Amino acid sequence: MTDDNQGETLPELDPSQTGLSDMTPEGFRKAGKKVIDLIADYLTDLEDYPVLAQTKPGDVRRKIPDHPPQQPESIEAILADYKQTIEPNLTHWQHPAFMGYFGITGSGPGILADAIASAVNINGMLWRTSPSATELEERVVHWLRQLMDLPRNWFGIITDTASISSLLAVATARHQVPGLLVREKGLTGRTDVPRLTLYISSQTHSSLDKAAILLGLGLDSIRRIPEDDAFCMDVTELEKAIHTDRKAGHTPFCVVATAGTTSTTSIDPLAAIGAVCRREKLWFHVDAAYGGSAAIVPELRARLEGIELADSVVVNPHKWLFVPMHLSVLYCRNGALLEDAFSLIPEYLRTTDSSKVDASDNKEEVCDFMNYGVQLGRKFRALKLWMVLRYFGAEGLQRRIREHVRIAKEFANGVDQNPWMERLAPVPLSTVCFRMTPPDLPENGENKEDYLDQLNEKAMASVNSTGKVFLSHTRLKGRFAIRLVVSNARTTEKHVLLAKELLLETSKTIDESERPQHLRQRNS
Amino acid sequence: MTDDNQGETLPELDPSQTGLSDMTPEGFRKAGKKVIDLIADYLTDLEDYPVLAQTKPGDVRRKIPDHPPQQPESIEAILADYKQTIEPNLTHWQHPAFMGYFGITGSGPGILADAIASAVNINGMLWRTSPSATELEERVVHWLRQLMDLPRNWFGIITDTASISSLLAVATARHQVPGLLVREKGLTGRTDVPRLTLYISSQTHSSLDKAAILLGLGLDSIRRIPEDDAFCMDVTELEKAIHTDRKAGHTPFCVVATAGTTSTTSIDPLAAIGAVCRREKLWFHVDAAYGGSAAIVPELRARLEGIELADSVVVNPHKWLFVPMHLSVLYCRNGALLEDAFSLIPEYLRTTDSSKVDASDNKEEVCDFMNYGVQLGRKFRALKLWMVLRYFGAEGLQRRIREHVRIAKEFANGVDQNPWMERLAPVPLSTVCFRMTPPDLPENGENKEDYLDQLNEKAMASVNSTGKVFLSHTRLKGRFAIRLVVSNARTTEKHVLLAKELLLETSKTIDESERPQHLRQRNS
Repeated sequence: MTDDNQGETLPELDPSQTGLSDMTPEGFRKAGKKVIDLIADYLTDLEDYPVLAQTKPGDVRRKIPDHPPQQPESIEAILADYKQTIEPNLTHWQHPAFMGYFGITGSGPGILADAIASAVNINGMLWRTSPSATELEERVVHWLRQLMDLPRNWFGIITDTASISSLLAVATARHQVPGLLVREKGLTGRTDVPRLTLYISSQTHSSLDKAAILLGLGLDSIRRIPEDDAFCMDVTELEKAIHTDRKAGHTPFCVVATAGTTSTTSIDPLAAIGAVCRREKLWFHVDAAYGGSAAIVPELRARLEGIELADSVVVNPHKWLFVPMHLSVLYCRNGALLEDAFSLIPEYLRTTDSSKVDASDNKEEVCDFMNYGVQLGRKFRALKLWMVLRYFGAEGLQRRIREHVRIAKEFANGVDQNPWMERLAPVPLSTVCFRMTPPDLPENGENKEDYLDQLNEKAMASVNSTGKVFLSHTRLKGRFAIRLVVSNARTTEKHVLLAKELLLETSKTIDESERPQHLRQRNS
Repeated sequence: MTDDNQGETLPELDPSQTGLSDMTPEGFRKAGKKVIDLIADYLTDLEDYPVLAQTKPGDVRRKIPDHPPQQPESIEAILADYKQTIEPNLTHWQHPAFMGYFGITGSGPGILADAIASAVNINGMLWRTSPSATELEERVVHWLRQLMDLPRNWFGIITDTASISSLLAVATARHQVPGLLVREKGLTGRTDVPRLTLYISSQTHSSLDKAAILLGLGLDSIRRIPEDDAFCMDVTELEKAIHTDRKAGHTPFCVVATAGTTSTTSIDPLAAIGAVCRREKLWFHVDAAYGGSAAIVPELRARLEGIELADSVVVNPHKWLFVPMHLSVLYCRNGALLEDAFSLIPEYLRTTDSSKVDASDNKEEVCDFMNYGVQLGRKFRALKLWMVLRYFGAEGLQRRIREHVRIAKEFANGVDQNPWMERLAPVPLSTVCFRMTPPDLPENGENKEDYLDQLNEKAMASVNSTGKVFLSHTRLKGRFAIRLVVSNARTTEKHVLLAKELLLETSKTIDESERPQHLRQRNS
């Protein structure tokens, strides 16, 4: 055997150099307890931090050396720098008054599960590379499927993000287009590939646009079906679009409905869309990344009626089930299709485990999860879903989600009753979209809407800059809307009311000084 | 504002129900210290566990209830079940005698960083959603780039896996094919899209095949360039293939070279391939997921000569830099292209931060990392790379990698000198491919090679089943090869020698009882 490298001399290791392994277990025990204290203190003091980082661009960058450290440093020194430079310049997503985007919670059991998962650091790509990780994953996705009241025989797999779950779903939809043979033949260098068209709504998450880019469908393949008054997909428009595309010789292949859109958490009419998909033989994907968690509450599950017609569903326990990032679950009516689309087994990952049959139960087969997606590396994420589901229990989780919905509804009622506020969308879950509206603005004042946009944008920025609460925004029917989301486990009525107070106070101040003269004449 | 849901009555929360938030901080402190002890004990006792789980399919599944828990359970009960059911049925990737696949290490500082990241649970999608997470990420990828001696102005971003990093790289390569306009127009319903061809080698990782499937290139677009004797891409064959494809009217667009292939860790001739790519104007992607870590050792960096010609490079610190999963880094010569390919900013994620200019330094711009990839959710992964780089220091990391390379080389020398063993590939890094060969097999015995395959497969399975060591396999030139990898921080010479002893003993026993009669005649 020739070996080009045999001539080289590698420096011998200095035998006096000890500690070539990892931190010692006892060193870990000591450092670990310090870190637990650091975290517990952080959780205790959360409300003392500004929610939105009060940081200027470059503030942190300038404090970190330009060159990597050459010599080892003590864990104490590293943690001290963390406390001094990193922690104060985070935006505190765990702060109870974080009510922007979607509130997420790295709950206690979830944090601890993540620590264990990083310690055992297994890669659950194959059953044999960690049987309990694979079988626990099968079990917890089965648990969640029951909690969401999804069909019993659906296949489930944990991924990192809804972006990836939806990508896999649309890729599988593309895979099963008759005659396309996309896996082998691809889409290039062919003249026999019709324009594949993908139906989403004006409110669909941008990850679906990214999926269309990646999958070679292109943004032009996207039919953005208009929303109705409640920001839900208009099913008549969907049917029309499909019809028009078929007439033009295109090939409709997939419809994406959303249960809990990012702007307003509107829930598309799943049953009606599902019926269209069945009739038209289109893949029906439901993005329930946010709203799917609500399905574990029986009386909220009714709002997702029709989800059971889907071919694939994504739900993110790291959004509203108190599991720290990353944990998304993709359910697929037909797991074999997912496997067809993605399975590739190189020799170094070939095992004979899948043919093992247990004597007492001849149905025992093993699942190699790597065959159902694109990422080969698979951290032990099932552990945190398992620990969170057990620690809170189904009833505990339901109570929390109910409480969030209740608080949001109370806030929405408050908006409806306040002459200075205007609700801009229904509140099917726990997100309220609204704006501040000076009650004495002339009804048809020129540029009134533009002024309201400016006023709301300024008011929100100003309130956020106090660090006391954090809200984010969207645009609805073209207009600036403030979003208040109650989905962080620590958020209570108190925080929501504080946001309201601050907004009222700030808007009034801004309005007093900045309202243009022509909008100052009274209505009456 | 109409609201369909206003008629519904949601159950009011029972005010006697307390604990609607998360685990209390003090509860976390207590539970956390138990978990740290659990982890420290695990790390202490690692060598007492069988490396490969001694589990039969269904063993774990049967012990987990079919239905999700309704009521909350104590963290003690959950951890007890973990210890009893989950932990014993893991394959212990952290065991020092885990020498299969690629050894990875969830080092102490890495585990602790992951716990902190899960606790702060920020989403670093935008600069403003956690300034320190974004700026720390910019800094640590800058540090690693220096350690690997890559060009200073390359853009770097952390992703979860090499599968995703390479997917983004090839997608960007596809994005910049002149006239393709894939982002907008896609690849379907067109007759003007030539066959795009992708060049990889026979040893390239399967994630590139998956990327080809996802991106609509199809497996047929892949040109699998043959390997030379050292399992490296044959550059003459590459040039021929490109030439043939151009003549056929196809459009070559990307070449993927590997620095550290999965089977043998062979390193493709990067400089020569890079030169071809420059000349032919092809995107040059280097998959250095494994081998890239070695580049931080100056005398090993020389083996990756030419990597600086790449358009994109992936390296996985969660492979051989002692960072727990998931942490892959994608470097891109031109970050703006990555942004061109993927950036999509929906209204709810629009900020004005990027226009902020710091008074004292007008170059301050903020990076919104979500614009450079497909996953919107971005856990605070930079923290673990930072903590690991500081805890070990560049020199500490270099020493460990050098030691792994030294142990592997010693083992390879031992193989070369042992009449019962045959080395099957060069050892450029710390992976040795070899097989067991009874020295008295007749030179040209009928089916000799098949017998060797069986013998090695059985011997490896038998040794793995002892739980004392774990090795994996590949096929080289069609023949079964055992792989021994030294890249887990805890692996020492002792574990490597144990593997050798066990293999020798087991192979001899199997050979004695199972060798076919016609292969029993002596050579001499």
